[in-house]
Amino acid sequence: MGENVVILSRDCHALRPERLAGFRKVEVRVNGARIVANVLISDGLEALGPGEIGLPQPALRRLGVKPGDHAHVSIAPPAASLDAVRAKIRGEELTKEEIRAVVEDLAAHRYSDIEVAAFLIATSSFMTTSEVLALTSSMAAAGAQLKWNRPIIVDKHCIGGIPGNRTTMIVTPIVAAHGLTMPKTSSRAITSPSGTADTMEVLSRVELTEDEILDVVERCNGCIAWGGHINLSPADDVLISIERPLSIDTPEQMVASILSKKIAAGSTNLLIDIPMGPTAKIRSNIHAQSIRKLFEFVSSRLGLFTEVIITDGAQPVGFGVGPALEARDVLAVLDGRPDAPADLREKSILLAGRLLEHDPLLAGGRGEQRARELLESGEARKTFDRIIDAQGPPPRAAPIGSLVFEAVAPRDGVVSQIDCFRIARIARTAGAPYDPGAGIDLQKKSGDMVRKGEPLYRIHGLDHSDFAAACEAAGEDSGFRVSSAGR
Amino acid sequence: MGENVVILSRDCHALRPERLAGFRKVEVRVNGARIVANVLISDGLEALGPGEIGLPQPALRRLGVKPGDHAHVSIAPPAASLDAVRAKIRGEELTKEEIRAVVEDLAAHRYSDIEVAAFLIATSSFMTTSEVLALTSSMAAAGAQLKWNRPIIVDKHCIGGIPGNRTTMIVTPIVAAHGLTMPKTSSRAITSPSGTADTMEVLSRVELTEDEILDVVERCNGCIAWGGHINLSPADDVLISIERPLSIDTPEQMVASILSKKIAAGSTNLLIDIPMGPTAKIRSNIHAQSIRKLFEFVSSRLGLFTEVIITDGAQPVGFGVGPALEARDVLAVLDGRPDAPADLREKSILLAGRLLEHDPLLAGGRGEQRARELLESGEARKTFDRIIDAQGPPPRAAPIGSLVFEAVAPRDGVVSQIDCFRIARIARTAGAPYDPGAGIDLQKKSGDMVRKGEPLYRIHGLDHSDFAAACEAAGEDSGFRVSSAGR
Repeated sequence: MGENVVILSRDCHALRPERLAGFRKVEVRVNGARIVANVLISDGLEALGPGEIGLPQPALRRLGVKPGDHAHVSIAPPAASLDAVRAKIRGEELTKEEIRAVVEDLAAHRYSDIEVAAFLIATSSFMTTSEVLALTSSMAAAGAQLKWNRPIIVDKHCIGGIPGNRTTMIVTPIVAAHGLTMPKTSSRAITSPSGTADTMEVLSRVELTEDEILDVVERCNGCIAWGGHINLSPADDVLISIERPLSIDTPEQMVASILSKKIAAGSTNLLIDIPMGPTAKIRSNIHAQSIRKLFEFVSSRLGLFTEVIITDGAQPVGFGVGPALEARDVLAVLDGRPDAPADLREKSILLAGRLLEHDPLLAGGRGEQRARELLESGEARKTFDRIIDAQGPPPRAAPIGSLVFEAVAPRDGVVSQIDCFRIARIARTAGAPYDPGAGIDLQKKSGDMVRKGEPLYRIHGLDHSDFAAACEAAGEDSGFRVSSAGR
Repeated sequence: MGENVVILSRDCHALRPERLAGFRKVEVRVNGARIVANVLISDGLEALGPGEIGLPQPALRRLGVKPGDHAHVSIAPPAASLDAVRAKIRGEELTKEEIRAVVEDLAAHRYSDIEVAAFLIATSSFMTTSEVLALTSSMAAAGAQLKWNRPIIVDKHCIGGIPGNRTTMIVTPIVAAHGLTMPKTSSRAITSPSGTADTMEVLSRVELTEDEILDVVERCNGCIAWGGHINLSPADDVLISIERPLSIDTPEQMVASILSKKIAAGSTNLLIDIPMGPTAKIRSNIHAQSIRKLFEFVSSRLGLFTEVIITDGAQPVGFGVGPALEARDVLAVLDGRPDAPADLREKSILLAGRLLEHDPLLAGGRGEQRARELLESGEARKTFDRIIDAQGPPPRAAPIGSLVFEAVAPRDGVVSQIDCFRIARIARTAGAPYDPGAGIDLQKKSGDMVRKGEPLYRIHGLDHSDFAAACEAAGEDSGFRVSSAGR
């Protein structure tokens, strides 16, 4: 994440530090590889000689540095495509070629953070559909491409914002059990309490290489892996690294981000889940529909069959929020346990059913019923076990946190609202996803009757200071609204 | 310049590094002071224990750290005014209060670089005049304010872009010799080969404290000091630190930047010099006039009497480009030497004359004649010497570089154009301003007849590799256009 940094000694003689004022960026070349980096001038590091440079771990990895390698440092020329960014700032429409040049420079890490921010803000004020199209296809092309020798590759993607909601881990085994191919690569949490990759990692290894992904999918029809090791749409990762801290998320950027990754991953049939609700990312139907149209427009032009489904995003899905608690819910659904969260089960069946409709061998309209059969028969669970087996055991045990606090109802009444954003924040404060066992376990959902003092949810934690901070946050605002029964 | 950084050990126990993903910024408090900083996680610094942090020199200075001080590090809350930035990104007009909140957070370094970039790009697409007004007054108010017990404080400012053009060092002593007060604080070069502070430093100390500035002005009616030690409009410094690497420079931001600094400096009467020319910052009369109007509008509302003058920016002013070469030109003009550059002398007289018109004791229209008298009589030179004497001797000798290369005319003809940007770039490549003796010494100006092989300019350098790079750059494109005499 973020920008590369190189540390130079104040008395560096390869590149006089005083020459850098106003330039700020240098190019570091080691063997064939190169990165653009910001410079830190070091005064106090005895370890760093005038002929040496310091690089952080991610930069060492990116450059593939071996001990004893020589590094060449020079002032980086500004990326040529920045002229297009300035044109966009002035309000011009960019050509396909200009956008491709920007994307290639982004993917090659030639932009500094502020240059990335400039591109994002300039494009967020307006972008034509042609520009979104060009951005998506350029992003998909700039990086690795997965190739599959199967005619239909299905995928699903949720635009996020709803805690719990771990449908991917149920949908994938249902779809794979049916015989369709679903090579799911997921992200880790960035600002949420868990990403699918974090939750899956409670049960299985997820950091697979491209070859391992191909092998797991060959054996199981599907995988649930972290996407970070396969360089799909690297420009997207660069843009996201700046979008997130700025909390900007326009429809255009969202569409380009999601579709570029899916196209690079070789998907042919995609289901997009847009949860809508008062505390979700998308809060109105008009907003949801305009995003839907943009997804459909860009997908159709790029040869990807995309269906967009707008789902209930009024509250968290399932009970658990945080990797280990969510994994527990997923297993409960796959095991058909009576205490499994019904909303997670039904939403997973709905989504899986839509994907199964893409099987030409299945009669139209049979998808949802087939999905339910595969879940209830235990076939999905068996496929999930095969996937886990193929991916390997989890890197570490992740028991649910033993520090427990109960947030209770302040009065008798009915749960009238659950703030998705607040619940996510508290779960994250408790330590999720870095402590996979930390998080929130919902005891009540919207519409449930509660008695004063009855638990609304439990906070689980492992680290005492994080746990205390989460309890304090829940005390300030639990995220639950309980209305008096009479109102 | 740029963002603060704090280095934490990978096994830091005050703040677990893995908690920082997605947050990126921390607040570092030492005694009463605090800064917002980005985090670097260190693996390899044996010097850095788990209970220690590393801070670069500028951060140590900003915090006023003394040995043994305890530092408190916590995740920084996002600046509240970022909501206003997001509103601006969405295209809304900001209120005075919102703009003030943004400026205060900028001045307190609560924004990360990318957040500053977001504000700049969002405001560069459109800004109402009310917003420019609010931005200017908020910026002027957020920082130090110089107070003078004299009724008229004159100042001049050039929007830049023209190499040479060191009129300030001639105008100030003329105006001060006359008896008006001109406490000039100047900047160092950021992307140019020299700022006024750099050129003045060849002859005198310029890094004065606020008290020293007050004292010099009390004794001499004027000073020519570096503005960096007095915290005038600190938000402007933050904005500039991001504008420059992004090469964005809108009229609105330029006006707010310049006027906020002048208001904070206590100026009452200001002369703005806008050089216009084919390779200048301002290239058309319509553009110059719209900036003029904006300067006048904002100044009038904020009680600053501002006159805008549009000058010839077709080519560099003077012969020398680079601190030592420019200082030589300045002294030649002040000494009334026959080989002094006439354009620098006449432009300085013009500007000084306009400022002298603000003296109520001088008959209207007498300014320019009076300025010429003060220059030709040697009074200005004597005042300049008094200012140098009061400011103190230069920190180091800055002889003109002894490495010399002549760029020559490729054919017989007439110099039809000199590219200001190119000349600045070559001078900077030669080492200016970091080597004050490096730069370019023009032998010909626009309109001059030349013979093939006759020198157009000399490059001076001190560092062999910089000098070689400058000579190479001049070989690729000298910046001079020589047209055949017949055409």
